[in-house]
Amino acid sequence: MERIRTVEMAAYVGRRVRLQGWLHAVRRLGGVSFVVLRDGWGTAQAVTETDADLAPLAGLALETVLQLEGEVVAAPAVAGGVELHRPRFTVLTPVNELLPVTLHKRQMKAALPTLLDHAVVANRHPARRAVFELGAAAMAGFRAALLARHFTEIQTPKIVASATESGANVFQLDYLGRPAYLAQSPQFYKQIMVGVFERVFEVGPVFRAEPHDTSRHVNEYVSLDVEFGFISDHFTVMGMAREVLHGIFDHLAATAAEALALLAVTLPQVPAGIPHIHFAEAQALIWQRHGVDVRSEPDLSPQDERWLGAWAQQEFGSDFLFVTGYPMVKRPFYTHPDPSRPGYSNSFDLLFRGTELITGGQRLHRYADYLAALDTAGLPAAPFASYLEAFRYGMPPHGGFAIGLERLLMQLLELPNLRLATLFPRDQSRLTP
Amino acid sequence: MERIRTVEMAAYVGRRVRLQGWLHAVRRLGGVSFVVLRDGWGTAQAVTETDADLAPLAGLALETVLQLEGEVVAAPAVAGGVELHRPRFTVLTPVNELLPVTLHKRQMKAALPTLLDHAVVANRHPARRAVFELGAAAMAGFRAALLARHFTEIQTPKIVASATESGANVFQLDYLGRPAYLAQSPQFYKQIMVGVFERVFEVGPVFRAEPHDTSRHVNEYVSLDVEFGFISDHFTVMGMAREVLHGIFDHLAATAAEALALLAVTLPQVPAGIPHIHFAEAQALIWQRHGVDVRSEPDLSPQDERWLGAWAQQEFGSDFLFVTGYPMVKRPFYTHPDPSRPGYSNSFDLLFRGTELITGGQRLHRYADYLAALDTAGLPAAPFASYLEAFRYGMPPHGGFAIGLERLLMQLLELPNLRLATLFPRDQSRLTP
Repeated sequence: MERIRTVEMAAYVGRRVRLQGWLHAVRRLGGVSFVVLRDGWGTAQAVTETDADLAPLAGLALETVLQLEGEVVAAPAVAGGVELHRPRFTVLTPVNELLPVTLHKRQMKAALPTLLDHAVVANRHPARRAVFELGAAAMAGFRAALLARHFTEIQTPKIVASATESGANVFQLDYLGRPAYLAQSPQFYKQIMVGVFERVFEVGPVFRAEPHDTSRHVNEYVSLDVEFGFISDHFTVMGMAREVLHGIFDHLAATAAEALALLAVTLPQVPAGIPHIHFAEAQALIWQRHGVDVRSEPDLSPQDERWLGAWAQQEFGSDFLFVTGYPMVKRPFYTHPDPSRPGYSNSFDLLFRGTELITGGQRLHRYADYLAALDTAGLPAAPFASYLEAFRYGMPPHGGFAIGLERLLMQLLELPNLRLATLFPRDQSRLTP
Repeated sequence: MERIRTVEMAAYVGRRVRLQGWLHAVRRLGGVSFVVLRDGWGTAQAVTETDADLAPLAGLALETVLQLEGEVVAAPAVAGGVELHRPRFTVLTPVNELLPVTLHKRQMKAALPTLLDHAVVANRHPARRAVFELGAAAMAGFRAALLARHFTEIQTPKIVASATESGANVFQLDYLGRPAYLAQSPQFYKQIMVGVFERVFEVGPVFRAEPHDTSRHVNEYVSLDVEFGFISDHFTVMGMAREVLHGIFDHLAATAAEALALLAVTLPQVPAGIPHIHFAEAQALIWQRHGVDVRSEPDLSPQDERWLGAWAQQEFGSDFLFVTGYPMVKRPFYTHPDPSRPGYSNSFDLLFRGTELITGGQRLHRYADYLAALDTAGLPAAPFASYLEAFRYGMPPHGGFAIGLERLLMQLLELPNLRLATLFPRDQSRLTP
């Protein structure tokens, strides 16, 4: 008999099937025993009134690996609409120890440190697993949206000779006897590759040696990066970011409906035109609406972002708001200035429910502009020689953006901590699991 | 007028179109000028007998970024079947310097060091670009094959607390004041995730601090990793590896025909049943056929692999050959032994045209077996505590494999050096570009 997956059972009503998976739960009600088996995709319930059927499980703990054969019977009251009768259990890998976290309750109740310490098994909980299933679907949706728009996928080096944007917050390593660094982003390489493929994207790890310990930061995360050429300005980039985000949510709806339902997530509507506000107007609005004068600040605080998010919701019914034109002083040296508004840049952030989700903008594209920008930033040109070569030999107006995968999941699922959206988080205190 | 891509021109015969891209080549033949523009997908040729048309290009070098408008005319003798007449050039980004490598000849003639030093521009050459286009298509084909088989994509940490398999060949870094390492492979995490999703894959960077400088090794590469549960033994894994490889080549044929044609690549046939030979029989065969006695060696040499590849070609007409049962002594501690043949393992390599392309096998899955294996290997259990937690709480028989993306490209394209299949290689002497 071929093994089938639990999620395929409904097609086998009236037939005997073979399942394989983990012993997820055992309940007894009167003289009836219910045994729940979990495989990589879902769960199945076996029912028996015969104690002898359960003999193979005697003395074994939950998470024992099993084979289960039984007859598929329609059971409208059960999730999935079917259950197994006349079960026959065969133990594949016995487990004898009690679990460090409870996996068979609907909610994962463990405290955050316990959950993270035991992520190796805690991630087996259906509600934890659903988070990462959505992460996989988000990556797939991201790629599908870009492939449909003639982008090419790249994989760029993570070990680099110099810090990407500044010497701070970068991990240093011993590279065969000389110092090297871990890439803080694929920024330089994705720009260089605009000269090759014109439209590129990358899904990969980025590394930030930030010493602060907040609920919104970890030291290694997955960045969904996009860069493309022949744009007019940052509004072209914002249009693409909107399309990609729309593509991701569409893909989640189409391929991950069960995980969304399990986590009780309602996908946001991405408006055809996401509202936008200039940084200076955003500060004026905050002064006007909230009486707090942030107009001399070079950046938005988390509180500012929440206020702006609430305003977008109230004014436009939108979960999303672009803030454009961030001051040059807070943006990296390769940022393109706003030609019509000195001091401000052709950059943007996309706020999702009042928190930054995407950062992007137009980049400089002329060689002479790079030399001037490095000079202004007080950075020497020599460590950037390879990067600058792209601009010496012709680059079009271009720009791009990056989405933090875990940040997207955290905000979509309204998780209280970014670590809950990270398979095995890396932070100040955590290098394992 | 909307800009179109060069590869879309054939649909616009008789109409005036706008292209954007790089000045790829200029030729004059008698009184006729040919200007080739390259965009992110292909090239287009503009033809004119009017010198005034070329005035905007006066004094500019190749790779100048241009807009080109013209009338699409059928031209059966030209690649692509169309060319542009009555061209109008507009310079977007002027270039004034001569290129460090020649981009407009059919072959990339630069010596390897020059090509690698100037990869930032050398990768713009159509023949170089085609290599990485095939790389992107291979990644897409890999993912498509696995998603169709109910696998889930994961992204696991690259900064780890201890070396994966051995302390040698691992990059050490300063992690916020304490030592950490770069992952040599996602091996432990992909196994752990079998406990969550049962079937997982990952596409990501791996890091090897190998000090040797060969044409087949670099220090950072892209690994296509697969792991799945509920297998019988390594033959189940080999069957999956065969299907995935078949899926990759199918995807290349379906989506990258032009790159394949440009590089004059013929895709190999993946036999429905790839021939296989046990390690011990392979050594006996070499002794028999070549008179070289390697029967006491614990591994195959590159020469052995070439001999076996030639044998598979001659005997079965196959570019592929599985070698199974490598000695336990040369395989990592988590390798499952062959229950019927002590000293040999349930592992395999897949040779492609006489060179190792895929390594895989069945892993241990019982907690007690891991404790014994670590003890045998002389490794302490403590650094592996998180990894071992997966096995304490129930793991099914499982296995997997890994394909080096650059290795696949090198062998498929018959490149003389792995660096030519790597976007920006990292080796003993090279940390830039």
